[in-house]
Amino acid sequence: MRMFLALVHHPCVDRQGKVITTALTNVDVHDIGRSSRTYGAERLFIVTPVTLQQKMVTEMVHHWTVGEGLTRNDRRAEAMRRVTAAPSVAAACEVITSLTGQAPLVVATSARMEGPDSTWAGMRERLRHHDGPVLMLFGTGWGMAPELVEGADVCLPAIVRDPELGPSDGYNHLSVRAAAAIALDRLFGA
Amino acid sequence: MRMFLALVHHPCVDRQGKVITTALTNVDVHDIGRSSRTYGAERLFIVTPVTLQQKMVTEMVHHWTVGEGLTRNDRRAEAMRRVTAAPSVAAACEVITSLTGQAPLVVATSARMEGPDSTWAGMRERLRHHDGPVLMLFGTGWGMAPELVEGADVCLPAIVRDPELGPSDGYNHLSVRAAAAIALDRLFGA
Repeated sequence: MRMFLALVHHPCVDRQGKVITTALTNVDVHDIGRSSRTYGAERLFIVTPVTLQQKMVTEMVHHWTVGEGLTRNDRRAEAMRRVTAAPSVAAACEVITSLTGQAPLVVATSARMEGPDSTWAGMRERLRHHDGPVLMLFGTGWGMAPELVEGADVCLPAIVRDPELGPSDGYNHLSVRAAAAIALDRLFGA
Repeated sequence: MRMFLALVHHPCVDRQGKVITTALTNVDVHDIGRSSRTYGAERLFIVTPVTLQQKMVTEMVHHWTVGEGLTRNDRRAEAMRRVTAAPSVAAACEVITSLTGQAPLVVATSARMEGPDSTWAGMRERLRHHDGPVLMLFGTGWGMAPELVEGADVCLPAIVRDPELGPSDGYNHLSVRAAAAIALDRLFGA
């Protein structure tokens, strides 16, 4: 199994459900890059169709991996080295196919997942026997557009608190940085 | 069991191991506040002895809970409402004692934990039968000063990848935002 992540800036939705392109957020790239490196994800695609934002990703990675940042913090370089921009999820899938010779199993996450088709424990187990590449999608803004979630091969349940601790009031508004970290830990944590 | 968190800005260490006070980081407060709310932690103490930084915490909380931010995002208000500044971990413990009538069980986390005295699964189980308050400590900078970790009642292991996935190269440089989210999920996740 070879693991890839995508942080999706388009197509996402705003709080009214309108499809939008969200802006690149520096700390997302750093945090999810560091989590990717810790849990062994091979590459983190920052998905945005905006050329200028793709260029910002490239410049950020350059700063930390060959520029000034490298001498300041080489652990950060190791995390940033696996970050790359992609214009769409489909383009990221093509890169993965050319790298591995196989199309990835696309796995969607969402804080508002309706009808997930695997449990986290089931997915954890499945990935231990999965031969090909896997691409996990994380949305920004108010989440990925429904067509992206519906088009995924597997949809995972929303991350929530153990219901045995008491009735949930439905609050699960984690940052994408927190959600991605938890997702990686649920699938690949010790 | 009543759960409390502390994000510790002092005493922490820099990369040379020197004791320092780190600066308040806006996104830490938001992210860990949101994770606290999601997993049912009652209060998040931002621990700093610097009066001006304590004032910044208070102003941030005010902005999101009664000021302009409230009308912009009421989910953020719910997260920020549980954030408060404290001058030290001891002061946070005193607040907890006065709130609950009992001193908290203090639980330390660290990316470089030597000699943890509980597993994550063991702690998860223990907390389900624990009657009093619990305070979990998270360090900033290059981690909490050793005396703070050593003074805790329980030290949890560093968060790492499942060793069955292949030999670890020891990289576990998560952001504190990611580490706190994972810790809460390991103890209270579904």
